[in-house]
This record gives sequence, structure tokens and C-alpha cells, in this order.
Amino acid sequence: MKLTEIYWHLRSDISMIEKELEQNIGAKHPVLKKASTHLLKAGGKRIRPVFVLLAGQFGNYSVKEIKNVAVPLELIHMASLVHDDVIDNAELRRGEKTIKSKWDNRVAMYTGDFMFARAVELAAESKQPEVHDIISDAMVEMCIGEVEQIQDQYNWDQNLRTYLRRIKRKTALLIAVSCELGAVAGDTDSETRRKLSLFGHYVGMAFQITDDILDFVGTEKELGKPAGSDLKQGNVTLPALCAMNKDPELKVKISSTIKENDLGGTEIKSIIEAIKDTGAITCAKQFSDRYLQKARETLQDLPDIHAKTALLQIADYIGKRKF
Amino acid sequence: MKLTEIYWHLRSDISMIEKELEQNIGAKHPVLKKASTHLLKAGGKRIRPVFVLLAGQFGNYSVKEIKNVAVPLELIHMASLVHDDVIDNAELRRGEKTIKSKWDNRVAMYTGDFMFARAVELAAESKQPEVHDIISDAMVEMCIGEVEQIQDQYNWDQNLRTYLRRIKRKTALLIAVSCELGAVAGDTDSETRRKLSLFGHYVGMAFQITDDILDFVGTEKELGKPAGSDLKQGNVTLPALCAMNKDPELKVKISSTIKENDLGGTEIKSIIEAIKDTGAITCAKQFSDRYLQKARETLQDLPDIHAKTALLQIADYIGKRKF
Repeated sequence: MKLTEIYWHLRSDISMIEKELEQNIGAKHPVLKKASTHLLKAGGKRIRPVFVLLAGQFGNYSVKEIKNVAVPLELIHMASLVHDDVIDNAELRRGEKTIKSKWDNRVAMYTGDFMFARAVELAAESKQPEVHDIISDAMVEMCIGEVEQIQDQYNWDQNLRTYLRRIKRKTALLIAVSCELGAVAGDTDSETRRKLSLFGHYVGMAFQITDDILDFVGTEKELGKPAGSDLKQGNVTLPALCAMNKDPELKVKISSTIKENDLGGTEIKSIIEAIKDTGAITCAKQFSDRYLQKARETLQDLPDIHAKTALLQIADYIGKRKF
Repeated sequence: MKLTEIYWHLRSDISMIEKELEQNIGAKHPVLKKASTHLLKAGGKRIRPVFVLLAGQFGNYSVKEIKNVAVPLELIHMASLVHDDVIDNAELRRGEKTIKSKWDNRVAMYTGDFMFARAVELAAESKQPEVHDIISDAMVEMCIGEVEQIQDQYNWDQNLRTYLRRIKRKTALLIAVSCELGAVAGDTDSETRRKLSLFGHYVGMAFQITDDILDFVGTEKELGKPAGSDLKQGNVTLPALCAMNKDPELKVKISSTIKENDLGGTEIKSIIEAIKDTGAITCAKQFSDRYLQKARETLQDLPDIHAKTALLQIADYIGKRKF
């Protein structure tokens, strides 16, 4: 099943969220408004607001409370992308010009800051004070995750635990928080909330692992960037870790070939093939499958409402997605 | 009176704030911790926490409530400086290496983000929900101010109102908020709170105008950058506006000489002299003095406690400061 098919059943809810995003992003300032709207129109999976919405359906949610949670979460996600684009000097994102290329670094920097600020401003409007606590804690953890990723670059000696901790902060956390805050907005009982948060965590872990696999197996067209970009930039992801675990000689080869400020030249292709040859993709895929299995099990005892079906379908989609 | 003399009487309170800043900036992550601490040790006037502290003394404040307010405000200020350094490619700040030069842009970007996030996380710990509202609103306004400043660059047709609105967002707002939140932390009556906030606004306006004057009259050594940097970068400040108002021909000369990506060469010095010759410094100084006078009047009916004396002394200092 494709994401669009799952989303089709949710289309009225999603269009409500899109409308809220558009209305709430609206800065008084024309450039900020244009830059933010540009980003918004470039689209995205809106996976975080969708999780908020679906988790909220396990309780009694008001559109207003959902909005106060879903919009900030998507804004935080978008802000982190804008800041990444400044640092990575990226010209394109999702096939659209980035803010830093359409305007400049200065506008991109402050659009990101503005979105962070707008996110906490909206969170403050929630009637539940814990919404604000959870969102600001998540922002802090995400920043730590970003810095961890820098520090761990080109460190070929890192282990699986380092990797998992990093992707937890970088990706899984905001998805877990999306599910948790949906539950908070819906005022579910605490056990339901705990389970939904855990579901988000597992799905988020699988989502990032799949992303990391796709960087090895996707085509340049599918990825919007050359395959092997992670490796080239010294980002040590699960397939590489699986391969180096299985073949210590490969580790020596990788660490002597891929160095900072030296893009590894044509050898990068042979290294990617060598990594694949160890069965690293299957190995990484097993991790992702295990997380998805845990995610499904977590929902087992929750009531069989439509939202549960949709959450399970999204989990299936993540396991099979090609881009 | 020098700032150090005013601060001398407040030294135990200020050292308390420094300690709180140091403790609360402490990230779990070593690089973030080092980068933040580096920034902290580089110093600064700590004018925002001092205003919080002094305003709080008009009520009954607990150290904990003051901390929940003063630390976030200083963090937001520091975060905005770090992000400015990324954009301006600055190597030095207050005579110390910037984070982007000591580490790199990536670390600087995420240290700034981390400080913003840590600021809202701490604000969330306040018992008074309005603390969080006020801080997040201020962050949004500051971002708008930053973008306004970009947009107004090299626009020699802007008027006084544009300038005043811009410095209100850029500088005065966070100082007004510091005074207001000090009052909130001290749980003063609403009239005292309103007056302290207004005092902060007036002092903040004077502070920025003085900064803008110093850019014309300061020496390179005092300023830590060549005089006339604002003008060179197309930032239209009050002395330039006063001069162009008085002498329309000068406006033609300025707008034909100073252009983007063209640093105006040696002519910048003659333009600065021409601006001074119109009496622009006196004109700008009058604005600053008027704001400081309003600031003093605002405090008139407040009780004559020690904090009031200190606030008035800071206002005097701002009117006379040389760097």
C-alpha cells in the first residue's frame, strides 16, 4: 500500500492540518511569510501531524488541541531542515529550491529561528502545560542529536549502540513525541499514551534505518542525491556498521579511503558494492523489520478503531518504502 | 558612573546569576557544553539578567523564579549572537574567537538552536504560564526584527518610523521583556509591571541608538571593528537618517556610493565625516536622551528602593557609555 492510499482515507483531516499549518505559519513579515510558505508548498510526508491526528483518535480530541500540537511539531521538523540546508549548502530539497538558494543564508537562518519560535508560541497556547514541556525537551534532544552526528562523522570505530542512540534523538524522538502528544491532546488514559509513544519510537527507528538503507540501494533519481552520500560525508549508518562487523578488512579499507575533505573519488562506488556484498542490506533490513514488529505488537491491545488500522498501514508502508 | 560600579553593589546577585547560567547551560553533550561554556566565559554585560533581577525586587521574588526567567532571556540573547556570527562569518566576538571559528558553522548553528531550545525548556519550568507566552512571543518578534533588518538594508529611502520599529524588535523588546518578567517573577501589581516593562522599552531604545551612534564616533579599538561598519553593510541607522533628512544631496551621494557587494572603498570615510558635519550625532543623541528621560519619568512613582537607584544609574550609564 502506498502512503497516498493510506492518506486518502485521512484526506479531510490532513487538509485540515494543511490549512492550519498555512494559517499558523503566516508571519506578519512578508519575506518570512513567503519563505515559510515556499517551504510549506514544497510538501513533505507530513508524517508527524498524521501521527498526532491518529493518536488523538484514541481519545477525545478537539481540533484546536490537535492543532496546538501538530503544527508546532511540523514547524520544528521544517525548521531543522532549513538549518540543515544552510549548513550543508544545499540548493535543492524535495526538488524545490531551498530557502537559502531562493533567498540567502541570512533569510534561511532566521526563517528557521522564526519557525522554532512560532512552534513554541503555538505550544504555549495549549491548555495542557505538559505539551510545552514535552516539545521543548524534544527540541533540546534533537539539537544534541545533531551535534552527536557531527562528532561521530568519520568515526569508523563506533558501534551499533552509538548509531541507535543517535537515530533515536535525530528521528525517532520527534515521531514518538508526535504520537504521545496526539494522545495528550486526545486526553487518553496513561497506558494508551505510553503505548502510542512507544509505537512512535519503534516506527521512527525503522523509518530512519530504512532511510539509511535507501542511501545505499536507491537510484540518484529516487533519492534526489547520489547514492552513498551518507558514506561520502562520513555518516556511519547501519548498513556500513553491519558490513564492517562482518568483514574487518572492509573496515580498514573504508577508513583509509573515506576521509574528511576528501570525497573518496570513484572508489566510493566499489566500497558501496563491497558493503552490499557482505549482506549488509539484509542485516539492516532485519533491524528495521524487528522494530516494525515491535511497533505492531505495541498496538495489539488498543481498541480496533480506524486510526489503529491506519497506524499499522503506515508501519507497513515504512517497511516497504522505496523513497 | 561606570557599569562595573553599578554592578559592584549587585555583585552577589550577579554572581548568583552567572552560577545559574553556567549550571543551566550544561548540556549532556560534551561539544555543546564546551561551546556554550566558551560563549558564557566570553562575558557580556548581562544587562538582561540584571534587569530581571532589579525589576524582581519591586515584588517578592524567589531565586528559583528569577532563574527561570533570567537564564532563558540571556540564552536567547546569546543564541541570537551565535547565529549572527554564522551569517556574518565573524571570527571574533568580544575579543574571543567565535564558536564558528573555534569549531565550525555546524557546531555554531546547533549550539544556537540548543540554546533557544534550552531557553524554552527552562521557561517551561516557571510556575507562571505567562512567562512562557511572553518569552516565545519575544522570540518570534526578534526573528521578525532580524528579517526586517535584512530587508531594509541599502534602502536609503526608509524613514524614522521604520528605523524605530526595527530597533524596537531587535533590541528594546528583549530588554522590556526582561523588566516585565522580573516583575512577573516578583509577582508585583500590574501597574508596577507595566511601568517596569515601559522603562525597559525606553532604555532599550536608547541603548540601541547609542550603539548606532558609537558606530560613527567610536574608534576601531573601542568598537572591535572599523567605524562606519553599519553604513558599509547598508544598515541605515539614526545618525544617517538625521543627516539625510537635513541634507538631501548627501542622501544622493550615499545611495550612489554605498551599494551591495561593493564596500564603498575609501569614500566611506568621507561620507562618515559628511554625516557628522550635518550635526547628525547631536540629533541622534537627542533621541536617545529623550528616551532616557521618558525611562526615568516612568519610574517616578515607584517606591524608592535600592533597585530603583540601580535602574536609574544604568539608564545614566547607557546615555554616556563609550563602548
